[in-house]
Amino acid sequence: MTTSRFDKLSASLSTSGLDAAILNPGPTLTYLTGLHFHLMERPTVLFFAPGKTPALVLPELEMQKVTGLAITPFPYGENPAEWDAAFRGAVQSLDLDGKKIGVETRQLRLLEYQFVKSAAPAADFPDAGAALASLRLRKDAAEVESMRRAARIAESALEAVIPLVKVGMTEKELAAELIVQLFKHGSEPELPFAPIVSAGPNSANPHASPSDRKLQRGDLLVVDWGAAFGGYISDLTRTFAVGEVDAECARIHAAVQEANAAGRAAAKPGVPCAEVDKAARVVIEAAGYGKFFTHRTGHGIGMEPHEDPYIRGDNMQILEAGMTFTIEPGIYLPNRNGVRIEDNVVITDSGVDVLSSLPREMKTVG
Amino acid sequence: MTTSRFDKLSASLSTSGLDAAILNPGPTLTYLTGLHFHLMERPTVLFFAPGKTPALVLPELEMQKVTGLAITPFPYGENPAEWDAAFRGAVQSLDLDGKKIGVETRQLRLLEYQFVKSAAPAADFPDAGAALASLRLRKDAAEVESMRRAARIAESALEAVIPLVKVGMTEKELAAELIVQLFKHGSEPELPFAPIVSAGPNSANPHASPSDRKLQRGDLLVVDWGAAFGGYISDLTRTFAVGEVDAECARIHAAVQEANAAGRAAAKPGVPCAEVDKAARVVIEAAGYGKFFTHRTGHGIGMEPHEDPYIRGDNMQILEAGMTFTIEPGIYLPNRNGVRIEDNVVITDSGVDVLSSLPREMKTVG
Repeated sequence: MTTSRFDKLSASLSTSGLDAAILNPGPTLTYLTGLHFHLMERPTVLFFAPGKTPALVLPELEMQKVTGLAITPFPYGENPAEWDAAFRGAVQSLDLDGKKIGVETRQLRLLEYQFVKSAAPAADFPDAGAALASLRLRKDAAEVESMRRAARIAESALEAVIPLVKVGMTEKELAAELIVQLFKHGSEPELPFAPIVSAGPNSANPHASPSDRKLQRGDLLVVDWGAAFGGYISDLTRTFAVGEVDAECARIHAAVQEANAAGRAAAKPGVPCAEVDKAARVVIEAAGYGKFFTHRTGHGIGMEPHEDPYIRGDNMQILEAGMTFTIEPGIYLPNRNGVRIEDNVVITDSGVDVLSSLPREMKTVG
Repeated sequence: MTTSRFDKLSASLSTSGLDAAILNPGPTLTYLTGLHFHLMERPTVLFFAPGKTPALVLPELEMQKVTGLAITPFPYGENPAEWDAAFRGAVQSLDLDGKKIGVETRQLRLLEYQFVKSAAPAADFPDAGAALASLRLRKDAAEVESMRRAARIAESALEAVIPLVKVGMTEKELAAELIVQLFKHGSEPELPFAPIVSAGPNSANPHASPSDRKLQRGDLLVVDWGAAFGGYISDLTRTFAVGEVDAECARIHAAVQEANAAGRAAAKPGVPCAEVDKAARVVIEAAGYGKFFTHRTGHGIGMEPHEDPYIRGDNMQILEAGMTFTIEPGIYLPNRNGVRIEDNVVITDSGVDVLSSLPREMKTVG
């Protein structure tokens, strides 16, 4: 599989008029090589040029990871004074000076960039983010299966937590219990993100962190959580009523639920991302809450919690089979309450397959 | 506290001859502002210049996080075409073009850098990594107390797991149980790193990931794990014997245990980092395993899993009260077995305070 992924990369670079690409630790490097490195104070960079053996600058103590791989290692010891020589060695081995070397601006740090630039002063470093992201854009069956497992793990974990939710419990306590259940149900050690558990006024902040605020009767409770399996992730959201909630809470929940359904119905091959966003947004606008739906309808998902394609009103990118993304409309009434309902989907040859299946109706907890 | 931290930053920039600094999401930004942002596809950058109100480029949907703070926000909407104007606004508000703007090369991505550079084409961007790291280098009492709690949480979690360790259990199963216990004992949702659980030949790889290999009698078992509390972390390692191990395993464990003690004994104010490294290393060299101690003796720890000061043989940085770091000598016999014993310490006015207290002797499990 790894070889054919490097072949895909060669083709993508050629289409983009690039001679090479450099990658630091992150999902693209892992996708291409199967290797996992942490993004740390020690630089690690893969140098790739079509038709040549890739080179890898890495700390000596990581050398066991590359044993047996068709990669030329350029290791360095514990003294940072050795880094420069390792970078020069890698650049020379692929004859990269003066070439067009594509970079991922969202991933590459100045740390790595400056060492490569110093070793290849006459090179250009065009943004190859789109070309590199395109490699991972259409998931194969094995990737989708991992995402389905990641969704199932997340759903089982939440189902185990729901009966424990009680008025008076803090958001942090609920988040801790959910995390425990995610691991009990089989998530990999690195969660895609720390779960959001936010209730009442906190739920009106789409990116809230769990707080010490206690759940109160009448709150809406937003839980945005995910699991990891096989290197792929899930990212789901459900919104609950804590005891009896007021009529407006019920109204915004119903509007978001309908918008989520409309987004899922609009998702199919051949349609631009913008159309899925619009399908969800018009429902919320019609309900009179358009200006409280403050974010895009979704984002791509796979190895990363956010990746292409982005489900935004200005994105005319056409959906194709194998693309995977979230559909997550929301309504946020500042200082009062918020609702979001999020599913993960994959575009199929004829429509869409929804990877998540937990009920979306407003369930009462507590 | 936040104000005085900005004052520290002003002084540090002045000493370094810098007019300003830019920070993207990461520990330094959080240390200065108390704000948490994810490093995502949407850029977030704080612009700081002494004597002026800091500016913050951020997504509109994060605006609630900055309400009431003495920071001028430059928000942008969901269309990336709006990013450029936000960056120009922030640069102009602080009059930064043509100035010396310090950057953290280990943290800043090309994504943020290119937008700032485009908005301030005549500016210089010197590496301010050392000046910025120095702000967080000497922990105050509250920071040390958080680290002590993070160590205690980690130790309680491991104590809960040890009785469950059995021959035939996989490394992954043991890691999953440890993660569950970390959260049950009070770790914050984002662990500092995924625990390393590696046994037998896998323990000879200092950066192994937990595998499906089953624990076998005669294995050494390395557990390298940590917890998070109050935004600060712990990072500990203990090595166990699975059933009876051979004489060499016992010998390398004893040598590493003695090296760990020697490193802790050498750590005190006024001593260079190199001396702590040397104190641990000579013990392992004397035992005849010098070439199998393949890494530095330790690294700084605090908000980040790796930060200044680095306990390396070439680092002449002088230890001062409040500095916090790991002492973690190891011996790795390729394809056979490995040992590492890691503690977290803080330099005091007169010596060292060890934040971790789990026994270091080779305990038999399984």
